[in-house]
Amino acid sequence: MYFASDNWAGAHPSIAQSLVTHAAGYAPAYGTSDLDRRVETIFSEIFEREVFVFFVSTGTAANALAYSAISRPGGVMFAHREAHMIEDECGAPEFLSDGGRLCPVDGPLGRMDPKGLETAIGRYPADFVHHGRPVGVTLTQASEIGTVYSLDEIGTIAGVCRRHKLPLHMDGARFANALVSLGCTPAEMTWRSGVDMVSFGGTKNGCWCAEALVIFDPHLAAEFPFVRKRAAQLFSKSRFVAAQFEAYFENGLWLEMAGHANAMAAKLADHVEASADARLGWRPQANEVFPIMKREKLARLKDQGAFIHEWGVPAGLDEKFGDDEVLCRLVASFATREEDVAAFAKALG
Amino acid sequence: MYFASDNWAGAHPSIAQSLVTHAAGYAPAYGTSDLDRRVETIFSEIFEREVFVFFVSTGTAANALAYSAISRPGGVMFAHREAHMIEDECGAPEFLSDGGRLCPVDGPLGRMDPKGLETAIGRYPADFVHHGRPVGVTLTQASEIGTVYSLDEIGTIAGVCRRHKLPLHMDGARFANALVSLGCTPAEMTWRSGVDMVSFGGTKNGCWCAEALVIFDPHLAAEFPFVRKRAAQLFSKSRFVAAQFEAYFENGLWLEMAGHANAMAAKLADHVEASADARLGWRPQANEVFPIMKREKLARLKDQGAFIHEWGVPAGLDEKFGDDEVLCRLVASFATREEDVAAFAKALG
Amino acid sequence: MYFASDNWAGAHPSIAQSLVTHAAGYAPAYGTSDLDRRVETIFSEIFEREVFVFFVSTGTAANALAYSAISRPGGVMFAHREAHMIEDECGAPEFLSDGGRLCPVDGPLGRMDPKGLETAIGRYPADFVHHGRPVGVTLTQASEIGTVYSLDEIGTIAGVCRRHKLPLHMDGARFANALVSLGCTPAEMTWRSGVDMVSFGGTKNGCWCAEALVIFDPHLAAEFPFVRKRAAQLFSKSRFVAAQFEAYFENGLWLEMAGHANAMAAKLADHVEASADARLGWRPQANEVFPIMKREKLARLKDQGAFIHEWGVPAGLDEKFGDDEVLCRLVASFATREEDVAAFAKALG
Amino acid sequence: MYFASDNWAGAHPSIAQSLVTHAAGYAPAYGTSDLDRRVETIFSEIFEREVFVFFVSTGTAANALAYSAISRPGGVMFAHREAHMIEDECGAPEFLSDGGRLCPVDGPLGRMDPKGLETAIGRYPADFVHHGRPVGVTLTQASEIGTVYSLDEIGTIAGVCRRHKLPLHMDGARFANALVSLGCTPAEMTWRSGVDMVSFGGTKNGCWCAEALVIFDPHLAAEFPFVRKRAAQLFSKSRFVAAQFEAYFENGLWLEMAGHANAMAAKLADHVEASADARLGWRPQANEVFPIMKREKLARLKDQGAFIHEWGVPAGLDEKFGDDEVLCRLVASFATREEDVAAFAKALG
Repeated sequence: MYFASDNWAGAHPSIAQSLVTHAAGYAPAYGTSDLDRRVETIFSEIFEREVFVFFVSTGTAANALAYSAISRPGGVMFAHREAHMIEDECGAPEFLSDGGRLCPVDGPLGRMDPKGLETAIGRYPADFVHHGRPVGVTLTQASEIGTVYSLDEIGTIAGVCRRHKLPLHMDGARFANALVSLGCTPAEMTWRSGVDMVSFGGTKNGCWCAEALVIFDPHLAAEFPFVRKRAAQLFSKSRFVAAQFEAYFENGLWLEMAGHANAMAAKLADHVEASADARLGWRPQANEVFPIMKREKLARLKDQGAFIHEWGVPAGLDEKFGDDEVLCRLVASFATREEDVAAFAKALG
Repeated sequence: MYFASDNWAGAHPSIAQSLVTHAAGYAPAYGTSDLDRRVETIFSEIFEREVFVFFVSTGTAANALAYSAISRPGGVMFAHREAHMIEDECGAPEFLSDGGRLCPVDGPLGRMDPKGLETAIGRYPADFVHHGRPVGVTLTQASEIGTVYSLDEIGTIAGVCRRHKLPLHMDGARFANALVSLGCTPAEMTWRSGVDMVSFGGTKNGCWCAEALVIFDPHLAAEFPFVRKRAAQLFSKSRFVAAQFEAYFENGLWLEMAGHANAMAAKLADHVEASADARLGWRPQANEVFPIMKREKLARLKDQGAFIHEWGVPAGLDEKFGDDEVLCRLVASFATREEDVAAFAKALG
Repeated sequence: MYFASDNWAGAHPSIAQSLVTHAAGYAPAYGTSDLDRRVETIFSEIFEREVFVFFVSTGTAANALAYSAISRPGGVMFAHREAHMIEDECGAPEFLSDGGRLCPVDGPLGRMDPKGLETAIGRYPADFVHHGRPVGVTLTQASEIGTVYSLDEIGTIAGVCRRHKLPLHMDGARFANALVSLGCTPAEMTWRSGVDMVSFGGTKNGCWCAEALVIFDPHLAAEFPFVRKRAAQLFSKSRFVAAQFEAYFENGLWLEMAGHANAMAAKLADHVEASADARLGWRPQANEVFPIMKREKLARLKDQGAFIHEWGVPAGLDEKFGDDEVLCRLVASFATREEDVAAFAKALG
Repeated sequence: MYFASDNWAGAHPSIAQSLVTHAAGYAPAYGTSDLDRRVETIFSEIFEREVFVFFVSTGTAANALAYSAISRPGGVMFAHREAHMIEDECGAPEFLSDGGRLCPVDGPLGRMDPKGLETAIGRYPADFVHHGRPVGVTLTQASEIGTVYSLDEIGTIAGVCRRHKLPLHMDGARFANALVSLGCTPAEMTWRSGVDMVSFGGTKNGCWCAEALVIFDPHLAAEFPFVRKRAAQLFSKSRFVAAQFEAYFENGLWLEMAGHANAMAAKLADHVEASADARLGWRPQANEVFPIMKREKLARLKDQGAFIHEWGVPAGLDEKFGDDEVLCRLVASFATREEDVAAFAKALG
């Protein structure tokens, strides 16, 4: 019962096979091979417009270099208070943006409140050099706690950004899970809603190392090769990342995997709701489930072989916790099997 | 006839297979899996002492973060004038070391002259704050132009470092090729000769993405997790790098591949020496061969399907170039076949 | 009626005279003159121990380079939410610390709550590389809103720092005002209470440009010349900063000026308390006064020639604001005259 | 006999007096006072066009922030091998430009050879991401060794910059000395010759701390307030720098002081040429003189009270040095008196 994280899973057999296939032969290095180019074309098809695709080694790199690309002296980027960029990247965004700052914005259940964002930006009057100045906004889709911004919500945030002339970045470490959840197209979830850059994650969804920064603006993209190389993020055998993405997109594998993960999460949620010993913190919208249960119940589940993390209660959760009750996180992935879910249900009681 | 670079080659079948094998199942992320630990143990066995191993995504990352780890304000690192860190890393070492500087040191055929190093360091008197101050030295083994420092030469440079209390880093993007060339042990080529850190490259020698910074000093190693994570270089599914290294070391595969590449380079060199239309710039010691030939000869070889780069003449090469003569680089790899070498010999005439 | 800021004031005649006196003659540059040395000795006498003194050009520089001196990869420094370092330095601390982060800590009336500090630090478990790690704490004395930490309060915060092995920095842009307010010695307010570094400000208290970072730890101090020079903060004619400090300390001028400013602030506060049209947000402890009044009252005062800033309400202020009421800030300085205070009283009514 | 450096001199009485005059009264801080504005207007008059003036604390700050203002990822700035930015700023330019690099360009007697500059720039082909890319050029006027670029020479270098679309910065730590030497206008020596930014130094020429970055391009200038503030270089009582510059420009004081310094240097040079015991390394063009003499002669001069530095022989100096001969540097300033020069002549013999 491996529910610790979707990055505990391995790689989908088709992804692994693609690596084997491309292991033979020769090709130009540093992102210039035919395969690199072909996969960039696939990205453009998927996004229904020309996009510029830059492979990097980690989701943190994609996020931090997105910041680096738009950073200016004294710049501040706005993110949800519990965003990965703020909580889990060890200062990489600040470091790689030459000392930028991340300003936390509140909002219920992992999503920035647009009014709160507007207020936060408003604290930096133009040309008041002492405070610094806004340079960008980032939202996480799906969020850190398995919720998803609707297209309208993205559009509203993008509207705030447009009013302040700020680029909007999407941390899409779980892009596919959000996409399947919304049932929309990549174009709709991004540039048609006002998003300017996407950290497009494949690793959590069945690849072993496939992360890309997808940029829509050609001017921004023209600078990015230097941003990436200066950060030591240009793979020599880049085509092996391309090989993963090729298999990832082939016949909609990526959506299939994400759909499976979401479905498993939904089942886990159903079992939690059906249980007398646990309840949901909130209903999952992607592949993460957050039950509330007694600490001793959690301990017993762990004893029975369930890998589950205790989790911090998100700010603004309108939920009373009983004595000894804790919030837990379960993450489903492409690799989660029905029998794991059933085993969990049984163990939960 | 693919001699453009060893990073044009793909991955050895055993490396690819190891990725497939480990694609199944679950394991903790971020370098904490059993496989990660096991491979670290293998590194320790290979180096005959406890070592600390940090996977990163590129050789540039290993080099730049080695600098980052020892950087201090106003610090200067010394490297051969034609070192990869100076020539080919787009300022990543300077950027990731918070604005450090690389001071070029001359020396014939890709190797720093120890006296020149001593002089260069001597230009930074202790406590003369205006100039800055020395913080480290790096040497490239094998060098950018296929030559190799002898153990004595490494020891001499390490002696200079010790006198000035400077850590010595080895850029081992082609570590295995140098090791096989010297016929010594990893311990002898590194810490027993006074080396403190190694950028240990597997990518050019048959992996698709396997680079590690190997640190001998526990104090330096204790800080490095933060150095790496802050630079966005901590893989979530780190065990897939470990999987490559596991196969790499299994039954001496790494030495076998490097030995093969070196042997192919030696044969290429023999063919050049035997040719009326070309001669060697210098005798190769690892897997790179540098012939001198007429530009039109090079053009004809390319027409016949040879991937060969024209190369800049290294400083201090004591060799007269005729009209229209150019220096070329051929790189052999684990994947170079006897028939490619034979085809080249035939085309060369 | 100039109450806009203490940096709107000029320089005390004795300070100006000292610059004239030292304008003649020659002396070694870059902080090595006899006068520089002599002033360092005076600092040591004032602090009753050997201290290391580094002149810099601004208070922001002193603060940011204090951070730079203790920064480590992934490091987080803790400061009151409304600290100058967070609010008014345009990201200089983050930039000059190589991408560090400032973590806001709450607390009433401009002073960090020690429990809140403990909690904030506790969110960074040792060796959890994802979050980053604590590297230091800074407190502002006097605070941004004219309050002062008692010696006990400083000691309590220093105790938290010691438990977590974190250096404690004091932003002393208004050091003298706090010192006079507490009626203690510089030693008591700093190292005897557990402070490790002080941004020692003279500019707001009658100098025109005299800021120093005072370091107690010789090891930290040994590195600092490079930290400062790398940040372009080493004055060539450094002795003119020394000349200001010489006059500043002569016959207790600094304490006299600060005492005068505090006394003027106290009188302003008395007038506010006595007024029917205004009340104090809180009682001043140094040279800043924060009245609450109707916006139209403020407008009228400005019409009558009073330079007063409207001010943001500090978090945690337990005070109801009526319709159209605003918080204002008045700052007194060495140059504030009794008649200015009287004029204000009259205008206030 | 104080010839150690022009920054060993103090401040001209008129400069000191201006500080006294402005010590009284109140004025807005952070560069917004009437005096700040007025002095910016004077700069515009002097340069015969609208210019944007930013005071900073040191010449190193002006240079490093000029680089910061034009820096881009992977960027390289070109400077003469012996430039202050390379030799004497402890890595500040690299640090404050987020890890930029300074590429040394050779050229005789302290001035870049335009062909060498062209070649150096040419080593960075467009879009070859590995090498990095050119982002700017800087020249020092007067040079580190007292020579001066002619207007034609500046124009030629500016032409190279224009061809490569690179901004040209002038390090004018001794701007006035060069100007007087050329007998041209500030406009001719800068923007009319193709210079885009000037580090305009007043400190070495009779101020105690008056350095400004002068920017001609409004777009570059619009960003610069954030560049400066982020680097902790915004003075609160900025008007005291303005006060120095006001007196500096009043009635041509600056040109008078520089003219005096140059004249004293010329006399020193005459005495050297007339001496049997010394000869000139080259003829001075500004306020620095470089004699060659026996080491024991230098020692004797020092014994007689002459402050003179031994100096490194500049690359490319076509001059044979006899046994025990050394190169020395004498710097004249506004404060150098005829009798000092006479005393030196007598001591030299």
